[in-house]
Amino acid sequence: MKLWGGRFSQGPEEVMKQFNDSFRFDQRLYAADIAGSQAYAQALYMAGYLLEEEKENILSGLAQIKGEFDAGEFVSRPEDEDIHTAVERRLFELIGPAAGKLHTGRSRNDQVAVDLRLYVMAEIDHMLAQLGQVQTALVDKAEAHLDVLMPGFTHLQPAQPVLFSHWLMSYFWMLARDKARLQDARTRTAVSPLGSGALAGNPFGVDRTQMAEALGMPAISMNSLDAVSDRDFVAEALFAFSMIAVHISRLAEDLILFSNPALKFVEIGEGYATGSSLMPQKRNPDSMELARGKSGRVIAALVNLLVVLKGLPSTYNKDLQEDKEALFDSIDNLSLTLSVVAGVVASLQVFPENMAAQLDEGMLATDLADYLVRKGMPFREAHHKVGEVIRYAEIHGVTLSKVPLAAFQAVSPLFKEDVYHTFDFMQAVSKKDSVGGTALSAVKEQIAAAKEMVA
Amino acid sequence: MKLWGGRFSQGPEEVMKQFNDSFRFDQRLYAADIAGSQAYAQALYMAGYLLEEEKENILSGLAQIKGEFDAGEFVSRPEDEDIHTAVERRLFELIGPAAGKLHTGRSRNDQVAVDLRLYVMAEIDHMLAQLGQVQTALVDKAEAHLDVLMPGFTHLQPAQPVLFSHWLMSYFWMLARDKARLQDARTRTAVSPLGSGALAGNPFGVDRTQMAEALGMPAISMNSLDAVSDRDFVAEALFAFSMIAVHISRLAEDLILFSNPALKFVEIGEGYATGSSLMPQKRNPDSMELARGKSGRVIAALVNLLVVLKGLPSTYNKDLQEDKEALFDSIDNLSLTLSVVAGVVASLQVFPENMAAQLDEGMLATDLADYLVRKGMPFREAHHKVGEVIRYAEIHGVTLSKVPLAAFQAVSPLFKEDVYHTFDFMQAVSKKDSVGGTALSAVKEQIAAAKEMVA
Amino acid sequence: MKLWGGRFSQGPEEVMKQFNDSFRFDQRLYAADIAGSQAYAQALYMAGYLLEEEKENILSGLAQIKGEFDAGEFVSRPEDEDIHTAVERRLFELIGPAAGKLHTGRSRNDQVAVDLRLYVMAEIDHMLAQLGQVQTALVDKAEAHLDVLMPGFTHLQPAQPVLFSHWLMSYFWMLARDKARLQDARTRTAVSPLGSGALAGNPFGVDRTQMAEALGMPAISMNSLDAVSDRDFVAEALFAFSMIAVHISRLAEDLILFSNPALKFVEIGEGYATGSSLMPQKRNPDSMELARGKSGRVIAALVNLLVVLKGLPSTYNKDLQEDKEALFDSIDNLSLTLSVVAGVVASLQVFPENMAAQLDEGMLATDLADYLVRKGMPFREAHHKVGEVIRYAEIHGVTLSKVPLAAFQAVSPLFKEDVYHTFDFMQAVSKKDSVGGTALSAVKEQIAAAKEMVA
Amino acid sequence: MKLWGGRFSQGPEEVMKQFNDSFRFDQRLYAADIAGSQAYAQALYMAGYLLEEEKENILSGLAQIKGEFDAGEFVSRPEDEDIHTAVERRLFELIGPAAGKLHTGRSRNDQVAVDLRLYVMAEIDHMLAQLGQVQTALVDKAEAHLDVLMPGFTHLQPAQPVLFSHWLMSYFWMLARDKARLQDARTRTAVSPLGSGALAGNPFGVDRTQMAEALGMPAISMNSLDAVSDRDFVAEALFAFSMIAVHISRLAEDLILFSNPALKFVEIGEGYATGSSLMPQKRNPDSMELARGKSGRVIAALVNLLVVLKGLPSTYNKDLQEDKEALFDSIDNLSLTLSVVAGVVASLQVFPENMAAQLDEGMLATDLADYLVRKGMPFREAHHKVGEVIRYAEIHGVTLSKVPLAAFQAVSPLFKEDVYHTFDFMQAVSKKDSVGGTALSAVKEQIAAAKEMVA
Repeated sequence: MKLWGGRFSQGPEEVMKQFNDSFRFDQRLYAADIAGSQAYAQALYMAGYLLEEEKENILSGLAQIKGEFDAGEFVSRPEDEDIHTAVERRLFELIGPAAGKLHTGRSRNDQVAVDLRLYVMAEIDHMLAQLGQVQTALVDKAEAHLDVLMPGFTHLQPAQPVLFSHWLMSYFWMLARDKARLQDARTRTAVSPLGSGALAGNPFGVDRTQMAEALGMPAISMNSLDAVSDRDFVAEALFAFSMIAVHISRLAEDLILFSNPALKFVEIGEGYATGSSLMPQKRNPDSMELARGKSGRVIAALVNLLVVLKGLPSTYNKDLQEDKEALFDSIDNLSLTLSVVAGVVASLQVFPENMAAQLDEGMLATDLADYLVRKGMPFREAHHKVGEVIRYAEIHGVTLSKVPLAAFQAVSPLFKEDVYHTFDFMQAVSKKDSVGGTALSAVKEQIAAAKEMVA
Repeated sequence: MKLWGGRFSQGPEEVMKQFNDSFRFDQRLYAADIAGSQAYAQALYMAGYLLEEEKENILSGLAQIKGEFDAGEFVSRPEDEDIHTAVERRLFELIGPAAGKLHTGRSRNDQVAVDLRLYVMAEIDHMLAQLGQVQTALVDKAEAHLDVLMPGFTHLQPAQPVLFSHWLMSYFWMLARDKARLQDARTRTAVSPLGSGALAGNPFGVDRTQMAEALGMPAISMNSLDAVSDRDFVAEALFAFSMIAVHISRLAEDLILFSNPALKFVEIGEGYATGSSLMPQKRNPDSMELARGKSGRVIAALVNLLVVLKGLPSTYNKDLQEDKEALFDSIDNLSLTLSVVAGVVASLQVFPENMAAQLDEGMLATDLADYLVRKGMPFREAHHKVGEVIRYAEIHGVTLSKVPLAAFQAVSPLFKEDVYHTFDFMQAVSKKDSVGGTALSAVKEQIAAAKEMVA
Repeated sequence: MKLWGGRFSQGPEEVMKQFNDSFRFDQRLYAADIAGSQAYAQALYMAGYLLEEEKENILSGLAQIKGEFDAGEFVSRPEDEDIHTAVERRLFELIGPAAGKLHTGRSRNDQVAVDLRLYVMAEIDHMLAQLGQVQTALVDKAEAHLDVLMPGFTHLQPAQPVLFSHWLMSYFWMLARDKARLQDARTRTAVSPLGSGALAGNPFGVDRTQMAEALGMPAISMNSLDAVSDRDFVAEALFAFSMIAVHISRLAEDLILFSNPALKFVEIGEGYATGSSLMPQKRNPDSMELARGKSGRVIAALVNLLVVLKGLPSTYNKDLQEDKEALFDSIDNLSLTLSVVAGVVASLQVFPENMAAQLDEGMLATDLADYLVRKGMPFREAHHKVGEVIRYAEIHGVTLSKVPLAAFQAVSPLFKEDVYHTFDFMQAVSKKDSVGGTALSAVKEQIAAAKEMVA
Repeated sequence: MKLWGGRFSQGPEEVMKQFNDSFRFDQRLYAADIAGSQAYAQALYMAGYLLEEEKENILSGLAQIKGEFDAGEFVSRPEDEDIHTAVERRLFELIGPAAGKLHTGRSRNDQVAVDLRLYVMAEIDHMLAQLGQVQTALVDKAEAHLDVLMPGFTHLQPAQPVLFSHWLMSYFWMLARDKARLQDARTRTAVSPLGSGALAGNPFGVDRTQMAEALGMPAISMNSLDAVSDRDFVAEALFAFSMIAVHISRLAEDLILFSNPALKFVEIGEGYATGSSLMPQKRNPDSMELARGKSGRVIAALVNLLVVLKGLPSTYNKDLQEDKEALFDSIDNLSLTLSVVAGVVASLQVFPENMAAQLDEGMLATDLADYLVRKGMPFREAHHKVGEVIRYAEIHGVTLSKVPLAAFQAVSPLFKEDVYHTFDFMQAVSKKDSVGGTALSAVKEQIAAAKEMVA
């Protein structure tokens, strides 16, 4: 069986061209590349290396090229090895030799560095907005189901009752940290390398700070050798993305578990599941399985870049061309994932009765110990005493709330009639009313703080 | 600056479709998918679930579809969510309801598993051929420069003289191990899961062994639950690819170092370097820098899959759809890299005089100790005595070969007139004549063994 | 709060010594190091560079040192920077200057390479035995519960009934592949580099093949430059370990899910769970959570080595000292994990009634379609017809087996009285009787094949 | 050869204990654990659950235990499964049943979370100080060699002359970013989870904000479910460490290359290299090779944790116990590495004459084009014209500065007598005087800014 054709027959030049050229993927940077060139043209003009007319021609030519890209009408040529040469080639066609002045003192090394930074800044902004959408979906859902009790798990074993809204909100805060990380990453991205030349710096007195400001970058790099090979900002974005992907993988895992018919706490909306005409009981949570699986590629993109950077000699090396594709793939996939997750959360149908069915008085044993603590017994002793009550219940085949008062008091005289108030799941929840606790009052405060944060 | 459009405006169904569908990338499996269906149609016919005419229609319909794909003329529809549904949809158009019999007892779960295995088998064969090409280039180069001495480095410091051919051949054996790993991986890939159904097995008595044979697979899977979710073979291929990428990164590092003008042991052919009309002294080894950098994405693809598989519940989960894109990316990039590496090795211009310029008599100190050992002195003592000779040379500002015999004999009476024979780099090389050593005789044997291996 | 002392106060030499020395962790190689030296002494004797008495002294001195290590009585000295210098230093103390002859033509570069290979060979053997123990536990459990039905999941949704034994056995085959990978890795590990010197080869005519045989290695390396820096065998072992860890993480995930009270298919033995005197309903599957989590460090060890090797110049570089600690950590943790997993599987208490409680007639819909296929209807049409039956059942609020025959026949006249035989979970299981299917007969064959394999 | 003993013979409980217990490694957290307990005791007292005397006893008991650990005199017991139980057990011995009150409303889940955060905060502070030491070493060296020219490389090919100090300073800014990342990570670490209980929150009204302040944490967690399983701060620290390790690997690569005798730009101090009594010309840069290799384990530690977290159900799972060892290993190794790097940088002997020997007039071709640009020629045309000059020089076998003026003017009349001023490496350097450029003035500003930053 012959599945593939004769890749061997390619002549060396062709193979090398294919290996080396990056226009295929870096054309995505066109808007950033053009923005960078516009800023540089302005700086050259200010420094006296462009006439006003030349500058105007360059700016209007660049604007036209951007229009062509925006409209999907830019026509590339085989010799366009990357986005930079493509734009320069087209500019020459449009305005003639003055195009050749744009590269005075500039190198592809500082050009690609500024392009990629502008691109990452914009994508971080986009990602922040998308995280906000998921957060809003979580808050909305939490507010809509404030009185729903569910078993809180540790070790995937029922541990203590909590509010379903508290569970939903737990993911809000993970994403809040993700946003903070992205914002910090953005600050370190918004540092302009423009004016670093190939490696040694710019000899034409361009105003680096002014260019940076024009590009929305509050800071400039301080060392040209570093500036042309610094890809920390890509790695940092990829790390922030990886944490998002990990958080989403945990939410997905929970939702997949909670969708299993034995629990059926929630059901994912039809638009985000795949059914089967044959097995109507089956609603596969494909969206969440894929969302969980996407963590692999996002984490891998980070590993990819760290491996590329490891042991690299200083300044620009061509290895750095490998900084883009994994970044683009992560952004595309994570962005799509977040759209889906926002939709899934909004689509969740909640089954409070199924959650209630998994509550068990055993989950109140800690509350029983806390009862004794409130009466003055040291916690470890209370823990021990409750163990005796539980053994009594087991031996007599009753639930805790059916243990007679005399039996309670045989264990400890601190038990009084009011011990039976302990066996109320909502009341147990209400006790955890410190900040961040699962009490309704605390969850309401949590939601209020969250709403302020996303507003 | 607004760089990107309103991805937010997509309706949920659209987002989910985009998230879920895989035809975009899995259409690459078409030949394998059709081969698998042909084998399955034959098996259903043998089991009595297809009439001969139905089988013939199915086979000819599938052949036509393959023709359409081969010719780049297959027309996909929006509802073609993956390669399997696309082929089935088209088959129905071509032959009508009998197409619906092809899926009797088969599930997309065992179908995609067999497709991916067939694809990996073919790609491994392709990769083996490409590794063979690089090996041949190494052997050819080694044979063409058999008498060239170069400094052998450890810690990137000159250590002992070796043959340049010995250095070239060191990469031959790395790739030989890579081929052995690929062959072992292929054996574990060529195990047919076809006939495992969705998860529980096949209830129609299809002959799984016969289907496997028809597909060139000598073995069949032994457990259907395992068979539908086993992606070990992908991970194993990705690991074998990672080792290839690591070996290539080391070769690339060596060639980049050896191309630095301070050494200039070799020059990479113009077709694989980028020059500069401005700086004619500059011949950037871009091809080797990229080859070094590609290790990042190949290793990352392995990490990607391991992360996807970690903690996955048993049998099929949709996360497994994430097994393909990184695999395809690794194959495409590694295949291209190997084409380039073969070309680079063949293109190398060798500068023996530059290698000779980096040889230094200090690199023969071990040989001087060996001289004493041959006269009966324990090695550690000989080592000590040579240290004394070296100090003498330093103090008197002479090279070792200029130390007078009397000075030698003052250190040890075992030194005789013949000690001066030691200061001959080629002779030092010739002494290392055990198997795998750098002596010309040993390197010739090595090359002979290598040629037999690739023949 | 000051948590740590003044690491800064260390003088540079002290810091460097701490950074450089490896005896702390590589003393673990002592048995391999001594075995390698014994083989080398024998080879030097045969080559005429040791007198018989010297050889005997060396061999008996080494034997004594091994005894000291075995008994935990070896006394190290600050100057013992690694296991090799420690053994040589001690040998000198025991037998005097003849110890200095042992290093004739040998370097730490080929010495450590052979040591590590011998160590990995032995650890692979150990791991193979441990995997065999887990396999035996799986087979024993599968045989002991042959008649237990459970819901088979895909997408963690109930899909089709399977035998619990079939589920258990699915892990047997994963481990079988792991063993095959380890065996292949062992073959590539058992290649002796001894006699490669520092990098250039051995000049004293030692018989490399004979030494290799004495060490249980059927092959020798073919290129000294490659031999001293080849760590492929470590990477390959770490990859094989990673796949084991991934498989164990999946088993752990299943067992954690199956231990949730809503399912309670199984209970992990008390010896492998942690309970709570307070919450007696709680039996935390800590052992399996840790086993799942251990996948992180094992995969990381592989990444560690690949990162170390990436871009390394050829032959020995000190970076290679970083090949050991992650390997040792993986071996220790994975070995312990396998011991625990074997114990957990053996300890599983099985609750067939809980598995039965999760079976649902909807899981037989495919069997109903298969019923029509057996009567001659194309599968896709049968799939459609069964959909109609299911809608009937939903509308009338009955399970499938309560749909009256007339209603069945209104959908298709192919339905006959015998359709009710379909609604028997065990019978549905029995139909999947092809090799690897879940039918009792097929599972028995599977077990028989498995027992032969581990015997 | 039998290298290992009978690990199989261990009884299951013993294996499980070994698997589960963490005191072996988490005792390192003792100071943080005790600090957390002190804050909690104070909060319980304020909330009315401890008498003043009980609180005082607890505080003094904890102080004594800390003293025992500090002095290395804490005696552990087999039942001390982790640092928390060890401290509690010891406290009970010291003060009796009141010790049992300390755990009122607290769980090991929030306890270990706060411990690990305190530990990471302290280690970040330590790492910041160490990075500062390396930065200081770089600045000192840069100031001491301000007038040294070296070839600046791109693609490891000589590109343009730069100042050696500029190269040194390029690493300063990498580490400056590393510090900024660590500071941001610290901010997100200094968020107290104390008072989250096992998962549901604290029911005893402890003042979480006050506890946090007492522990030097300006913020508290907002959701208890999240708080007990949030390990983002560990991942973020590990990422920041990974970037440090990558930067160090690049510095190491440069120094290893620059130490090769063909360049010999620098020599690493004897205290950080290993010499050879045999090969006096050899000074192996072992320290920098190890530093380069250490990147593997640090990156791997990050991968480890991301794999552990991937797909984990929400709240506490025992998998999280795997968060510590890789963190500790990274900290220990990276801290040692930074000590060594600071020492290496300080120890560097600089050879300006060797750097000068690698300067070549071809590296001034860009400056020649810039000359024409200054005379008004568009850069691309100037680039072309200089190409003609270079071809002239090649044909006539002269260096650029020896091309006669007539030949220059034949290429372009813009060339004047002053063109010969271009052929001065220091002057070429001086032209790159924009911020971040390699001109002496710019480097001095850079150093001034750097000194202010570390002050």
